[in-house]
Amino acid sequence: MDKIPPQEIHQRVKNFQADLAAHDLDGALLFQNVDIFYFSGTIQSSILFIPRESDPILMVQKGFQRVREESPLKNILAINGKSHLNATLHDFGIRRLKRAGLEMDVLPAQLYLWLRDSFPQCRFLDVSGLIRRQRMIKCPYEVNQIRKAARILHQGYMEIQGFIKEGVSELEIDGHLAFIARREGHMGILRMRGWNQEMTYAHVLSGESGSVISFLNSPHGGSGNTPAMAQGAGFRLIRKNEPIGIDYGVGINGYLADQFRTFVIGDLPPDLERAHHCSREIHDLFAREAKPGVPCPDLYAAAKDFARSAGLSDNFMGHGEGQVRFIGHGIGLEIDEFPLIAPNFEEKLAEGMVLAFEPKFVFPGKGVVGMEDDYVVTSSGVERLTLTEQVLIKLKP
Amino acid sequence: MDKIPPQEIHQRVKNFQADLAAHDLDGALLFQNVDIFYFSGTIQSSILFIPRESDPILMVQKGFQRVREESPLKNILAINGKSHLNATLHDFGIRRLKRAGLEMDVLPAQLYLWLRDSFPQCRFLDVSGLIRRQRMIKCPYEVNQIRKAARILHQGYMEIQGFIKEGVSELEIDGHLAFIARREGHMGILRMRGWNQEMTYAHVLSGESGSVISFLNSPHGGSGNTPAMAQGAGFRLIRKNEPIGIDYGVGINGYLADQFRTFVIGDLPPDLERAHHCSREIHDLFAREAKPGVPCPDLYAAAKDFARSAGLSDNFMGHGEGQVRFIGHGIGLEIDEFPLIAPNFEEKLAEGMVLAFEPKFVFPGKGVVGMEDDYVVTSSGVERLTLTEQVLIKLKP
Repeated sequence: MDKIPPQEIHQRVKNFQADLAAHDLDGALLFQNVDIFYFSGTIQSSILFIPRESDPILMVQKGFQRVREESPLKNILAINGKSHLNATLHDFGIRRLKRAGLEMDVLPAQLYLWLRDSFPQCRFLDVSGLIRRQRMIKCPYEVNQIRKAARILHQGYMEIQGFIKEGVSELEIDGHLAFIARREGHMGILRMRGWNQEMTYAHVLSGESGSVISFLNSPHGGSGNTPAMAQGAGFRLIRKNEPIGIDYGVGINGYLADQFRTFVIGDLPPDLERAHHCSREIHDLFAREAKPGVPCPDLYAAAKDFARSAGLSDNFMGHGEGQVRFIGHGIGLEIDEFPLIAPNFEEKLAEGMVLAFEPKFVFPGKGVVGMEDDYVVTSSGVERLTLTEQVLIKLKP
Repeated sequence: MDKIPPQEIHQRVKNFQADLAAHDLDGALLFQNVDIFYFSGTIQSSILFIPRESDPILMVQKGFQRVREESPLKNILAINGKSHLNATLHDFGIRRLKRAGLEMDVLPAQLYLWLRDSFPQCRFLDVSGLIRRQRMIKCPYEVNQIRKAARILHQGYMEIQGFIKEGVSELEIDGHLAFIARREGHMGILRMRGWNQEMTYAHVLSGESGSVISFLNSPHGGSGNTPAMAQGAGFRLIRKNEPIGIDYGVGINGYLADQFRTFVIGDLPPDLERAHHCSREIHDLFAREAKPGVPCPDLYAAAKDFARSAGLSDNFMGHGEGQVRFIGHGIGLEIDEFPLIAPNFEEKLAEGMVLAFEPKFVFPGKGVVGMEDDYVVTSSGVERLTLTEQVLIKLKP
């Protein structure tokens, strides 16, 4: 059970305070569990005030003893509900807030309106972009957690090969992957920041399931086993000679790895096998071209052009209304972090970014093929964190 | 893959429209996936406008074809991002909104502020309470889904008995429960409405793990295997003669069952066995007294008094700062629904409510014991939906 190193927490706070100063903010009030974990080391029910200059104040609503053990922050105190907030800040000599940051992308409106009424003199501004941009650069501790998660994914991809057989249901495979993940220490959730977005541990999509479009911001959705979830594994039984796409995620100490492999019992139809090979080639292209300073839209465009040359434009990252306009996304405490390898994400790669790169091809009625691997951006290029070989995994019938 | 019956959807809309009229609202704009599913039958990315009088308008952002298959609503149209919202309402002859409802408890502030700016003439009011109160009364279709989920939980509680052995880790048991749940058709997520609240499929808490306090609004939290998740199963190995508390949830077609059983290899210490028996007696008390018209606070008080008479006040529903002030909660599409069997929830039981009733006792350093069962309120009392016997489950060493 690793803890975030205290000096890392202090550095994060310091970096954020520099951001606050640059935007002329007196401080930020953070409420989201993941952001609080990032800046404090604990996920117990708390409110975190990070002032522009002095030490942060962590106000704990439940789990006080545990916070004391988990967080290296100096100012930790129990408060009885959020109504003590104003008085508490006052006790710490925080002058009346005039401009303060909030996580407007996730903070519920009710809470926002309560803050507006409780601090009538204060102008609240959205700092979620600042936080997400800060969080996109990972320190060695964070990369190490993602490496550990990647080891479990590799274990899962190896072990599941003995379980995938004709007549087994997608749900059974999904359940077995969940079993492996938890046994090996998966923390039990894959967090997403996006509004209304949610994930199961895995997507197991065989044959035409792989081409079912869903609300999820992903090239493959799947039918799921109910319209109430509408993604991932369903009751469909595995057959031979069709793609079995497995998207698999694991979290270790908060940090997620997110990968995808294509399996087949027997052989794929030639057009799908060709597309799978194209996914491998796009990975090679990415590994050659990605390095600090390269704009994310350029990497997207290069991959898209490559797919077009291969005659796979209609299948690239989905089909029809299911096509998504990205080919990679940051991973960390959440599965939908920055950067996006997308046409509209005008940011350059930088050392310490960790991302899942996922060239996939979807064939209506036939399924999804491709590979998703995790990469960390180094000083001169990218290093692949995925341990599983970059191949189509063929199983004997 | 059951669908919500179309007439049920239409009835839900009608009931909500009566609420809107009673509060003099022109309509409500719904954004949360679960509420949209409840009123439309689909969870694909959409915005749902329910006007006070005419037919609802479902504006689909992704998954259009699927929405057409899943939802019985008449007005379904694709929109390209939320910026078309105003024009779309106009096209449907919706006059300028003056008073409209929003789900202020979950709607992100960013989205709220965008709405405020896009509809400057409109006063937005919180309708989340109205929705949660409407959703707390279940129709027979909904009760039936929860029955199906309860069948899977029973299957899991039976099957897992062959897997619980000395030296097996909590995480392995958790993983095996996940496997069973998914194999049998669990939809893959347990939804919670509460801000920052989240759940794994199960809590497996052995010995002192059962008394570790966590942020979760539950009498037991558990350490989990990382401060980043801080709840549920950890790496601890199962020993004999200690309580193994298993909280287990499954969702079928959106609807959740949520139960708890205590297992022991060998025998419990006498004080814990006595407390477990007290949990059973509180269930009996509840089954005798609960019926339409009984105020929820009275049921809470009766249970608390019973625990006090048994000398178990300090252990009742947690210990120390971990004690929670409820003994039951509604279940449905979310695990934290209304009603609450709590001192401050001034509502009376009514036919069609479904709730999880969970008298539990926590002993610092020793663990958690008790039982949680699901009940539906009938015309004259309550019916237990849980299929598992109301006993301490003793396993041979």
